Formats: sequence, structure tokens, C-alpha cells
Amino acid sequence: MDFSGALQAWRQLLGNEHVLVDPTSLAQVQTATFATTQQVPAILQPATTTEVQACVRIANHYKTPLYPISRGKNWGYGSRVPVQDGCVVLDLGRMNRIVDYNEELAYVTVEPGVTQQQIYDFLHDQGSHLFLGMTGGPPDSSLIGNTLERGVGKGPYGERFAHVCGLEVVLPTGHCIHTGFGRFAQAKTTRLHRWGLGPAVDGLFTQSNLGIVTEMTFWLLPKARHLQVFAYAIHDVEKLPLLVDALRPLLQQGLIQTTFTINNDYRTFSYVQQYPWTEAIGQTPLPPSLRAHLRQKWDTGLWFGEGAIYAASAAQAHSVRTLIHEALAPLVDLLIFFDETMAALPREALQALIPGIDIDEALAWYSQHPQRGVPTQAALPMTYWRKTDPMPAQPDPERDRCGFLWCAPAIPFDGQEICAAVTLIEETVFAHGYEPSLALQCVSPRTIYITTAIVYDRTVAGEDARAQACHDDLLARLLQAGYVPYRLGIQSMGQLPPAQDDTVAFLQTLKQALDPNQILAPGRYTGS
Amino acid sequence: MDFSGALQAWRQLLGNEHVLVDPTSLAQVQTATFATTQQVPAILQPATTTEVQACVRIANHYKTPLYPISRGKNWGYGSRVPVQDGCVVLDLGRMNRIVDYNEELAYVTVEPGVTQQQIYDFLHDQGSHLFLGMTGGPPDSSLIGNTLERGVGKGPYGERFAHVCGLEVVLPTGHCIHTGFGRFAQAKTTRLHRWGLGPAVDGLFTQSNLGIVTEMTFWLLPKARHLQVFAYAIHDVEKLPLLVDALRPLLQQGLIQTTFTINNDYRTFSYVQQYPWTEAIGQTPLPPSLRAHLRQKWDTGLWFGEGAIYAASAAQAHSVRTLIHEALAPLVDLLIFFDETMAALPREALQALIPGIDIDEALAWYSQHPQRGVPTQAALPMTYWRKTDPMPAQPDPERDRCGFLWCAPAIPFDGQEICAAVTLIEETVFAHGYEPSLALQCVSPRTIYITTAIVYDRTVAGEDARAQACHDDLLARLLQAGYVPYRLGIQSMGQLPPAQDDTVAFLQTLKQALDPNQILAPGRYTGS
Repeated sequence: MDFSGALQAWRQLLGNEHVLVDPTSLAQVQTATFATTQQVPAILQPATTTEVQACVRIANHYKTPLYPISRGKNWGYGSRVPVQDGCVVLDLGRMNRIVDYNEELAYVTVEPGVTQQQIYDFLHDQGSHLFLGMTGGPPDSSLIGNTLERGVGKGPYGERFAHVCGLEVVLPTGHCIHTGFGRFAQAKTTRLHRWGLGPAVDGLFTQSNLGIVTEMTFWLLPKARHLQVFAYAIHDVEKLPLLVDALRPLLQQGLIQTTFTINNDYRTFSYVQQYPWTEAIGQTPLPPSLRAHLRQKWDTGLWFGEGAIYAASAAQAHSVRTLIHEALAPLVDLLIFFDETMAALPREALQALIPGIDIDEALAWYSQHPQRGVPTQAALPMTYWRKTDPMPAQPDPERDRCGFLWCAPAIPFDGQEICAAVTLIEETVFAHGYEPSLALQCVSPRTIYITTAIVYDRTVAGEDARAQACHDDLLARLLQAGYVPYRLGIQSMGQLPPAQDDTVAFLQTLKQALDPNQILAPGRYTGS
Repeated sequence: MDFSGALQAWRQLLGNEHVLVDPTSLAQVQTATFATTQQVPAILQPATTTEVQACVRIANHYKTPLYPISRGKNWGYGSRVPVQDGCVVLDLGRMNRIVDYNEELAYVTVEPGVTQQQIYDFLHDQGSHLFLGMTGGPPDSSLIGNTLERGVGKGPYGERFAHVCGLEVVLPTGHCIHTGFGRFAQAKTTRLHRWGLGPAVDGLFTQSNLGIVTEMTFWLLPKARHLQVFAYAIHDVEKLPLLVDALRPLLQQGLIQTTFTINNDYRTFSYVQQYPWTEAIGQTPLPPSLRAHLRQKWDTGLWFGEGAIYAASAAQAHSVRTLIHEALAPLVDLLIFFDETMAALPREALQALIPGIDIDEALAWYSQHPQRGVPTQAALPMTYWRKTDPMPAQPDPERDRCGFLWCAPAIPFDGQEICAAVTLIEETVFAHGYEPSLALQCVSPRTIYITTAIVYDRTVAGEDARAQACHDDLLARLLQAGYVPYRLGIQSMGQLPPAQDDTVAFLQTLKQALDPNQILAPGRYTGS
């Protein structure tokens, strides 16, 4: 490795202003929402695919490893911090162009720096009748970055990676490829078709260190002419398996086409308030009596779920609503549907329909619902849950030393399995002194991700280590039970159980063939 | 290469009875539905994944190339014939176990020898409420084989490869991997989740020569409680772009959730009769007057399409039907919906509803509709279209020297593009003296495959060469226009235009890394 030679070459390529080595910038990318020790010697900010290729070639020449980030908002999984020490961060944030957009065929093609808010604003400005489902992540997070981690948004295309195509990828050698039909300059279906001709390789570049994705096409959906959103809650833990088993057939039959979440009470609390330090007299985790009190205060169930019906007519919306109502009403403690007819009612009439519900909140919830593709900051406060200072006007969890760790196992969409996993998670997280903040992220009729947040305050001495121990214990127990996470934090890449087959050697063969100098994001996912 | 050494080792492994070298067997696998010259020195018939691994290791040791087939029904694309001369055929037909099945989570796990009919019968015997969408291919074709070529079935999971997971793959070195979560012995979501953790690699093994898939899980759908099937026709070519542009929003909005086809008149004729040699006085291609006559005789439009509504209640079915009717009725010349209420009517009442339609045919069409997951032989007669002898009771297109070539470009789901492609195909195929037998296979809201069949009689001197020239001319013109096929025949692997990027070198790097001795299906898709 010849770092100073590489630095000189990168400066010549990008200009001094796009090769950052100042302590402030470096400290930022070295900071996650949990403890890390990795040092970053420099940050590169290329503006084009050609510059990315040149950066990569320099890295190969001088054997200096690179770690690409898009917007770096991978909170709870490592933010911008490289898996291994000594990697130069390749910040793709300047590549923020919306490259293509087609209203009839319903797609948008973007670079890695394009954010959720940016695409929402763009479609709004175009007067588009289309939408893209957003994640619960921050509005200024990258669409491509999230999708490459196989993140989940709202809406019928919520499983984002299943609804994209046409990746442009810079390989670790600096070569450039286009997935699907994109290798053929004249192909008319590059942004319309996923597989192309020959091996379908785009999956290779998700959760991996085999390439740098510099462009991706996202498919869009028409806004529903008749959108119904609905919410439901249960108060008793006994009802959870019944609820899960009642939802599964609704997804199988396509009556619920969107991804959706069911939050437990801790998760709900952390959206709307910080830890009640005063009432708890400083004690953690949250005492049961206080938990019950907060549940009453916020009028939330033990589990609170949502969903949406995307219908093209009032009759279709009504027919689907009837079926969902029939399936859920007998077993839930609350079930509310909200549609445009209700939104148009006089306030008194609406209040009569939904007694006890805050009208303004309900109307705002309906008109700005995440199921419409509206980016939301609603989840951001949860990172400040255990802080004693209030969340500032310009929140920044890394700067403010919010402690935040995700662990998100994939569980069969089955009531008994979900309950077993929830019990395992609750017991483990409680035992370590934290609140098990859970959401059941229903991504398909077959799998639910339980996104588990371990939230703490990094300014409290010892908490970094205690929270990480909790996370690692939880991960180990989940793995042992067969509940493998759908995604990993940078600290957990080496914590997987051994494979029963030759997969690890296979991935290492791919890595060695595509990245002979091991310059791209070493240690990230592929085991080398 | 040491073929005799390899043969001895394979015989020791599999027994003499599963290493075929008799001329009859070899002649069969050397015969496609078009001219080929490749010789096959032997056929291996392993019964287990372990035997497949051992076969592959022997092939590596003796440097003898293998060409895997499942059921070998890749008609029109090369059947069982290897891309290159001298390959030993690895026939996986004996691996025909249904490995797993789950009614609640809705999946079935199978080996490569499992056929469409087998899975239909299995689900029927289980009293399952689930179905798997079938292709138009023969009932005894392989599910895995078709899916690896990214074939298209009916139903909401019609794009088969998007709805499978958990591949078991024997690599060209004999190593074995499991995609998704399958590498972890204890994982509970191996058959429920597509991507797993880390790079998603299953796409690598489709349309490729990078591995031998020995197991795959297919996701199943619940049978619709209220199934409506519908059909529509247009008589004028001017209406085709209007029809395509009216269908697209129906797919985008999820009102039509299934894949479906729109057949031109030639395609329809070839389902129900052979070439009218007598009326045509031996002349080809079909004279326009005779074409018009046949269209009247069979009461089919210029284009005849189908579709289905999978509903969970009569009200839902009705609401969706209303929307589809509103969109299509103003521009088509025929539009018929058929549901269980109609099927239950007295014959006279039903006939009054659908005047001019054969009641028995309509009832049979509804109860055995391919959109229900019923395998069909309906398309098989098209391979005998240009034969002068009638199709025998036990049809076998290869044995009977049916000439049959597919060319299936991917076209944007756009009326103007579809018309331009149809015109290009019609002009080219006519110019070579064949009937352009077309189906618009609508696989997504963004792409239509135009499956073009060139049908001829291999027993007529010169026809093999003329038909291939037609195919190759068509392929070249389609490529030039930007309409790249979604799939290739064995004869066309070298006919692609150059890539604009480094994709070919990238695929060759993968191939070299995974198959250093180049023993697996050389020449198939990856350009090496």
C-alpha cells in the first residue's frame, strides 16, 4: 500500500476540494450510532461514473482500499464507517442527478446521491401521477444505498430490490458494466426489464463488496385513485399469533398488496416521546407500571399495525375493505379504515365516525401517509429515546451521540414462529437492560422482518459496550433459533454461523476473481 | 480430454444402465426441432445431488464437457442438444422428487425432473387450495428447466423466476451451494425468502453455464375463490396500439395481476388446424384470401387476447371487472367475461348471454383454464402446423421432424413500439415464406415478449436452411431495432451485438473463476 501516492493521484483527478483529509470531515465518517474504532485516512468525492472508475484504478495501483457510501445514512448498521480500518471513504453524494424519468412506462433512473425527498419533490414538480414508496429512514437518505442493502419501503413495490433494474456498476478493477439489457447500447428495454439476456447479475451487487453501483432505475406505481389506509391494534399478547395468521391469507390473495409494519408499544412510545426519566426516577429499563401508563397515555395497543388498499374505484376499495374487515375485526381491539369520503366529511360527522380519535391527526395521517410515498421524519425521534436532552431542531444522531443498533431477523410469516421470535427478543433485550423496540415488517406473504432497535445514550459511560453486548447476544440467540437477519451491521460481518455447504468458498472465489487486489470494502458481507 | 477414462469412471459411479451410449438414445438427444450437427458421446443419468457432484468431478478430472438438461423440452430453442459439439448430456430426469410442500406458507420444493403435470397432480392429490401457474409448454416439461431459462407461466406468479427461491446448485467444480438463507443449516426461511444474507446469487444460474440447479422452491398462490376469465379480440390492425396502451394502466394499477397472451390469427389457426395444403394448392406462405377465410371459419379476430381476475369475493370480482370493461370495451370488437355464476346458469340462459359462442367449449375453457394452473396440450399442435401428416396420438415434434424455431424479443409495453416490432417481424417472416405466428406475452406493466414461432416441415429439402435463415435475419433486424430477445436458442449464442461496456469480459471472468476447466455447457450464454 502506498497511501501518499494514491492521495496525490486522487487529488490530481478530483481536485483538492474533493479529497477531504481535514479532521472534522474524517471524524464525521468515523462516527456511527455505536462504538467503532476504524480510522479513515481520506474521503473522495467523485462527481461522475468516469471519476469513480478512475478512483478505483488508482486504488488498485496503490493497493489502497475504498469504502463506498451513497448518503451514508445507514443508521444502526454502521452509518459511513468502513467495516475495516484504514479504508478511504468513496462518497458518492455529489452524484445526485435524476438521469431519466418516464411517466407512461413509470420509472425513474437515478444516481447514488439522489435522496428520498429529492425524488418525492421531483415527481411532485412534474405533476406526476406516480409515486415511489419511501422507507422509514430519513428523507435525505439515498434510494440506491438503501436498495443495495435490500431495505424495505412502503407500497406494493415496498420490497425495493425486487422492483428495480438497469444497474450501472463500476467493478473493483475499474471496469464498468450494465445489468439487464443495458450492455446493448441500442436496447429499448434497459429500464423496463430486470433480467436481460444471459445470467442475471444485479443481485451480486447487493449486500456485497463486488461493485459500486452508480446508477439504478426504480419502477414507480400510479397513485391510487381511491386510497384507503387502515390501522388496527391488539391489547393482549395472546392475539398476536391470531393476527399474524389472519394477515397471511390477505397477503397471499393480494388483498393487501403493500408492505406494512406492526409496531409494539415501545416502538410507538419512542416515536412520540423520549424516555420518561423523571417518572422512572432514572431507572432503566422502563418499569412495567410506567409502560402500562404510557400505553394508556398514547392510547396505543400492545401492537399497533397499519395497512393500505390501493384501489381504482370506490367499489373496488369497498369490496377489499369488506374482506379485510371480515378477517381482522373478530380478533383485534381496534380497526379503523380511512378514505377520501371520510376525509371530505364535516368535522362533526367525521368525529362521530371515529370517536376518541383526534380529527386533525387523523386527517394529517391520511393526507401525508407514508403509503402515499411521502417521506417522513416520524421515526427519527426514536434514535433520541434514551437521551436526556430533547431532540434538537436539526437532529443528527451521530453528532448527538445517540446510541442505536439494529438487529432484524427474517421470520416465517406464521403466528407461532413470530411469537417465539418476539419472546426470544424481548427476554434477551430486557435481560440486558433495554426496551425491546420492535416492528414486524411484513415484506411478503412468507416472511416478516422483526426490526429490533436497541437504543441508548452513548454519552453514558459503559453503555456502548453494554448495548453492543446486548446486540451480539441477541444476534447469537436468533441465529441459533434459525432466525437469520436479513441485513447486517458493520460490526457483525464475522459473527455468522458456519455454512453447511461451499457458499463461503464460492463467495471468496467471486471476490478474488472480481477484486484481485481486495480494494473494495474489504470485510463487507462476502467473507473476505 | 480423456473420454474413455471418464466413461469408465461414470459407469463405476452410476452403473452401466445410467450411462447411455446406444445410438438410439444418442440420436434422440442430438435432435432438435431445427438442424443441428452437434454429436453427443454419452448420456449420464444421476439420481441424486451427490451423484451430480461426482459426475462433475469426473468431468473435471478428464476434461470432458457436460451439458445438463432437466426434461429436455426446450423446443424451438434447441431441445436437448448441447451448444457445442462433443458434450456429454447430463440428464437430470431421474431426479424427480417433490422434496417439500407447505400448504400454509404456500410453497413446493422440487428437483429438476419434476414436471408441470406432476406438480398439478400432486397438489390435486393433496386436496391443496393452492396452484402453480403453468407455461404453454408440454405438461411433461420441467419446472426448473423452464424457470432457469426465465420462462413465463400463467397467473400472478407467471414471471416464474421472480417467485422462486432456495436454489441448490452444483458448481462446475463439483462444490455445492444453497442460495438465499439455505447455506445456514438451521435457517427457517430458506424456502420463504429470496435474497438471504449477503450477495443474492441465484440470478447467476439462470440463462447461464455457471452451475447445475438440483433443487428449487416454487411459491404457490391460493386458488381464487372467485375467478373470472375474460377474452377480447380486435379485427383491425389500427386498434392494436390502442389496446396495448389501454392494457398497460390496468397492469400498473394491479387490476390485471396475471401474465397473459394476445395471439395473432396465425397463432390461433395453428392451435386448431394444420396448414390448409389443399385449399392453398400447396402454396406457401398462406395466401391473404385463405387467411381471411380461416379467420372467419374460426371466428377469431386479428388479435385475440385473454386475461383473468383473481378475486376473493363476488363484489371484488365485479368491481375489477367493471374497471377492465370500461377500459377495453370502447376499443375492442369482442369482450367476454366468464365467471362461476355464468357457469352455473341453465344452458339456455348462458347461451342467451353469449350468443354465437359454443357453450361446451366455453364451459370447458372456464373450468380447465390455464389461468387456474391446469397444464395444457393446447399449444402442441402448432409444431405440426406445416406438416402434411396429421399430428399423431403420441406427438413428438423432434421424432416427427417438425420444424420449429422461436425468436422472442422483449419490447416496451407501448402501443407504438409493439406495432413497430410486429410490423418488422411480419415483414421479415413473410419475406422468407413463412407465416408470422405471434403472441404478445404480457409479463409486466413495462415489457411484452413477442414470442414469434417460425414453423416448417424438416422433411422438405432445403427447409432447415431456409427457416434458419429467416430466424437469423429476424434476430439481426430485431437487435438492430433495439428489441433484444429475452432468451436464446442454442444456435444464436454467438449472434449478439457487441456490448457497449465490459459485460462480456466480466462474464468471462466469472466463468473462468467458477469453471476453470470449462466443463459446464461451454458456449451457453456467458460467451465462453
